[in-house]
Amino acid sequence: MKERAVFFLSDQTGITAEALGHSLISQFTGQNFRQMTLPFIDSEDKAREAVQTINAASKKGSLKTIVFSTLVQPELREIVKDAKGLHLDMFDAFLEPLAVELEEKPTFALGGAHGMSDIETYMRRMEATNFALANDDGGISRNYDAADVILVGVSRSGKTPTCLYLALQYGVYAANYPLTDEELENGTLPDFLVEQKQKLYGLTITPERLQQIRKERRPLGKYSSAQQVRFELREAAKIFRRYGIPHVDTTAFSIEEISSRILDSTGVERRVRP
Amino acid sequence: MKERAVFFLSDQTGITAEALGHSLISQFTGQNFRQMTLPFIDSEDKAREAVQTINAASKKGSLKTIVFSTLVQPELREIVKDAKGLHLDMFDAFLEPLAVELEEKPTFALGGAHGMSDIETYMRRMEATNFALANDDGGISRNYDAADVILVGVSRSGKTPTCLYLALQYGVYAANYPLTDEELENGTLPDFLVEQKQKLYGLTITPERLQQIRKERRPLGKYSSAQQVRFELREAAKIFRRYGIPHVDTTAFSIEEISSRILDSTGVERRVRP
Repeated sequence: MKERAVFFLSDQTGITAEALGHSLISQFTGQNFRQMTLPFIDSEDKAREAVQTINAASKKGSLKTIVFSTLVQPELREIVKDAKGLHLDMFDAFLEPLAVELEEKPTFALGGAHGMSDIETYMRRMEATNFALANDDGGISRNYDAADVILVGVSRSGKTPTCLYLALQYGVYAANYPLTDEELENGTLPDFLVEQKQKLYGLTITPERLQQIRKERRPLGKYSSAQQVRFELREAAKIFRRYGIPHVDTTAFSIEEISSRILDSTGVERRVRP
Repeated sequence: MKERAVFFLSDQTGITAEALGHSLISQFTGQNFRQMTLPFIDSEDKAREAVQTINAASKKGSLKTIVFSTLVQPELREIVKDAKGLHLDMFDAFLEPLAVELEEKPTFALGGAHGMSDIETYMRRMEATNFALANDDGGISRNYDAADVILVGVSRSGKTPTCLYLALQYGVYAANYPLTDEELENGTLPDFLVEQKQKLYGLTITPERLQQIRKERRPLGKYSSAQQVRFELREAAKIFRRYGIPHVDTTAFSIEEISSRILDSTGVERRVRP
């Protein structure tokens, strides 16, 4: 299938342009997109360079290039629009109606969305990340009094990346604890977790998927055997039921979705806004 | 100052709606926004619930509510538009021109942007996260042959959160190594780093900022003294110069910006798209 070039243009990281553009193009499945991000377009020279890059891609392909743009500064937006392609410009679409409603002119300052808004936000994210690391995998600190949420589940059910994402994205203090063989066999949680019962949140996963993930790490042995995986998940489910622990099946979800669902269903407040 | 309610509506995590909305409202500094995210609006009931929540907020405040929406399904978008406020709808603005150009109807399927697109993406992000953890703080693995990039810098210059962000967002294998007192005093890097010189990337920070960050952790002692902080940063800068290591000053940047700048300036390829 013919490739179509898609560009995400930004004067900052490109994260917003990518998020916006990707959610739109993922609505069209009969296409073959080649995605490229051009971040930090913050001068007229860089804007002209971006035009050249886009035009070169357009020349190569026979399909019209799509350009998603979140450039803030009007003079750079003007330059970039010279590039051949269909331009979908977030600021064009939304800034004007917003300015009218707010009765205020936009500052056109860079760095709003993913810039360092303040030192406090940075500190909070760093501290939350340190907390997640110190309380990863049942380990070192077990500083569960300070936790906003404690994820429990079997090995490789997605606890660690979810805790780190909760810390980095939302500044949430997330600990995690892997259920041990002993706990799975006895069907009981240790006292230090029972004391924090209201903070516990379970991650589950289908046996097939868990086996596949574990095999990536250790192809042979009990750890990734169908029998062991089934046993662990069955017993973990019993523990969740016995203690009334809310849980989510991570099989069909991305790390973003799991994190967002945990916040949504526990009501844990984020400590920072992105 | 009067508060104005701002809602981010999504049938998924809300991350795209937040990124879009936040980059727009941050252009207006003379306002007092109260931001709320309503994720997982994926049924008519939930859409009607969202309308009630928005109307309740609108009733409380005297300023018109702003509603950023990334809902995909047309019937849910219709319901939500009954809510009182200024609606800025990403799909309204961009889906139609995109569909015309692509000559294809949108699927209106959920889960495109931050959904689990495939197991491979999930695995890569997990593996990259595990790599970052195993190679954090100069530790355990030192599996630098497999690294895409190795961050070097003094303690608390932002290495760990940056590595984790690179892993989670981009699937990049990022290790980090804290410069030791010995290395700072001798001005030399250990052989195992010199061998990977092309992968090294330095993080710097201003002395004032570093001292502030260190004081949060340890208020007293040499570690957070002005003299020690200045010494470490001066010697680290010499090492970066001596070995020709590219570097970025993290003082004024968010974790997203630092990460994005590293990719942009090293040319390291991301392994996943969000």
